Amino acid sequence: MQNPVTVEVTRGSLVESRHRGLGVVVDGEGKTLFSFGDAEAGVFPRSSCKAMQALPLIESGAADAYGFGAKELAFSCASHSGEDAHVAMAASMLAKAGKSVDDMECGAHWASEQASLIHQARTIEYPTALHNNCSGKHSGFVCTCVHSGTQLKGYVDYDHPLQKEIRDVMGSLTGAVLAEDNCGIDGCSIPTYAVPLKGLAHGFAKMLTGTGLSNERAKASRRLMDACMAEPFYVAGTGRACTKLMELAPGKIFAKTGAEGVFVAALPDQGIAMAVKCEDGTTRAAEAMIFALIARYFEKGGETQEKLMAMANRTMNNWNGLTVGEVRVTDALFA
Amino acid sequence: MQNPVTVEVTRGSLVESRHRGLGVVVDGEGKTLFSFGDAEAGVFPRSSCKAMQALPLIESGAADAYGFGAKELAFSCASHSGEDAHVAMAASMLAKAGKSVDDMECGAHWASEQASLIHQARTIEYPTALHNNCSGKHSGFVCTCVHSGTQLKGYVDYDHPLQKEIRDVMGSLTGAVLAEDNCGIDGCSIPTYAVPLKGLAHGFAKMLTGTGLSNERAKASRRLMDACMAEPFYVAGTGRACTKLMELAPGKIFAKTGAEGVFVAALPDQGIAMAVKCEDGTTRAAEAMIFALIARYFEKGGETQEKLMAMANRTMNNWNGLTVGEVRVTDALFA
Repeated sequence: MQNPVTVEVTRGSLVESRHRGLGVVVDGEGKTLFSFGDAEAGVFPRSSCKAMQALPLIESGAADAYGFGAKELAFSCASHSGEDAHVAMAASMLAKAGKSVDDMECGAHWASEQASLIHQARTIEYPTALHNNCSGKHSGFVCTCVHSGTQLKGYVDYDHPLQKEIRDVMGSLTGAVLAEDNCGIDGCSIPTYAVPLKGLAHGFAKMLTGTGLSNERAKASRRLMDACMAEPFYVAGTGRACTKLMELAPGKIFAKTGAEGVFVAALPDQGIAMAVKCEDGTTRAAEAMIFALIARYFEKGGETQEKLMAMANRTMNNWNGLTVGEVRVTDALFA
Repeated sequence: MQNPVTVEVTRGSLVESRHRGLGVVVDGEGKTLFSFGDAEAGVFPRSSCKAMQALPLIESGAADAYGFGAKELAFSCASHSGEDAHVAMAASMLAKAGKSVDDMECGAHWASEQASLIHQARTIEYPTALHNNCSGKHSGFVCTCVHSGTQLKGYVDYDHPLQKEIRDVMGSLTGAVLAEDNCGIDGCSIPTYAVPLKGLAHGFAKMLTGTGLSNERAKASRRLMDACMAEPFYVAGTGRACTKLMELAPGKIFAKTGAEGVFVAALPDQGIAMAVKCEDGTTRAAEAMIFALIARYFEKGGETQEKLMAMANRTMNNWNGLTVGEVRVTDALFA
């Protein structure tokens, strides 16, 4: 199946580049409300599924034992920019479990975002695992293991009990079989599993609505999503798409990006969730797609819809501030 | 016409993302030796055509008047990383014409490459036009105007005599009509014109071989391409694809990248040139395509071909240095 062109990048009056994509919107029952492209294609969720991976932090009792509030829970679902407040939050969560950066197995990297990288370059000699964009998830992992009395070392490995538990959680939510043949290694070294895009969206719709979940899991799921919506800075950072989306309509949009052009969102008022993947893995296209897809479900012509569409169809300026073109979504998102 | 998938990005045993592309190889006469995708599609060359845009610097007599050698000529064709030597070279070229950063109209930006940005953040408060990746081209423009006695102010504008001359040069080389309806504004504010990809490749084949060019233009063209091959650091920078390609087989490969997934190359020994465009504008795919396309024309199984294919098909490691997947070219490049 050919995925349609969903995003065009123009220059002058011409289209300079084109992105293809797939996407799907489902309700808690798994009913497809809208889709484009091959929505059953297997897709690595990457960081988009961090809220699923954070469920053991709550279900194990660790989050309550360490007194974690909305900020900590949002941060356990984050792909953050390595800003000072993010780094401090990772250290603080680890300290609650009596652990430190030395116990993290995610590796270290400089910030990807320009402003954050400039700040880091001016204030630190080199980044540590606390600066890793996944340090919130890993702090949650460390806390979960310590509270549960599970061996900490090797917590990123496929055979570690925590990863096995995450596999069970994600398999149950997405309806997919997660095993070695659809497993890859993520940037932060934990396993990531390719699942049908529709299954990923359905998993978030179940988390949002509680449909088909145990009472405990339904409560844990909403607690994580509500925390992200309440503290969007801790999910990403200054100027980032996830943060902007959740700030734009507080409590009405949950959103999380993943590497290689994945984005998921869930809308509490509508009881639906959605997922998109840009075929070529480009973030600018995944962002435009999710902005437009979310916009479909807000009041026609209303302020929220207009703000979302202004993010989906945006002008591009050059180094002198001249408008040179635009990033815009195609009709494939409005069929 | 559907452009084929030319580059795949894998994770574990699965393909995570796919890039489509178009490409063409031609000789000096304009004969197509190989192509894939819609090679007649209009493509903005962006920075890939800087050697064409630098021809007036030589043809006006400015380069000789200011005593420019291979480094300055290579730099006038550059999209550089804003390293200290690049910034110094821009200032030095401008000084030869009695001008300075204040006369540049390209705007300013921080380096895109991580190592260069970290260095800049630690050594300067903010970047100037000298740091702009196009500062070599703009230094050349300023020198051309000053030497020719052309009004300097507004040298980036569509109606300025220099841009009109560049339009004539590029129209003649590519065989395309360059006018307002296929014109866009580039990142550094000069006009950029969408031309058929084959015309872009043919223009470089003419520059390489001199076919159909006046003696003066043929000499100026080879002088620029030879300068780039002799001083590849000044064309891009540390670790950059253009620099690595031209260092890999000195004097045997001319190569220049452009934004939004464009890459051109010319092979003096074979008398051919080539151009590729990634449909979605992604650099990683444009690089893989040009590496593999160049490799076709080197000795089968030889050292140069093997090095090029090792760049075209490369493993990707995560923050812990674990191999997580690869970027690889498809059979579309070997049909």
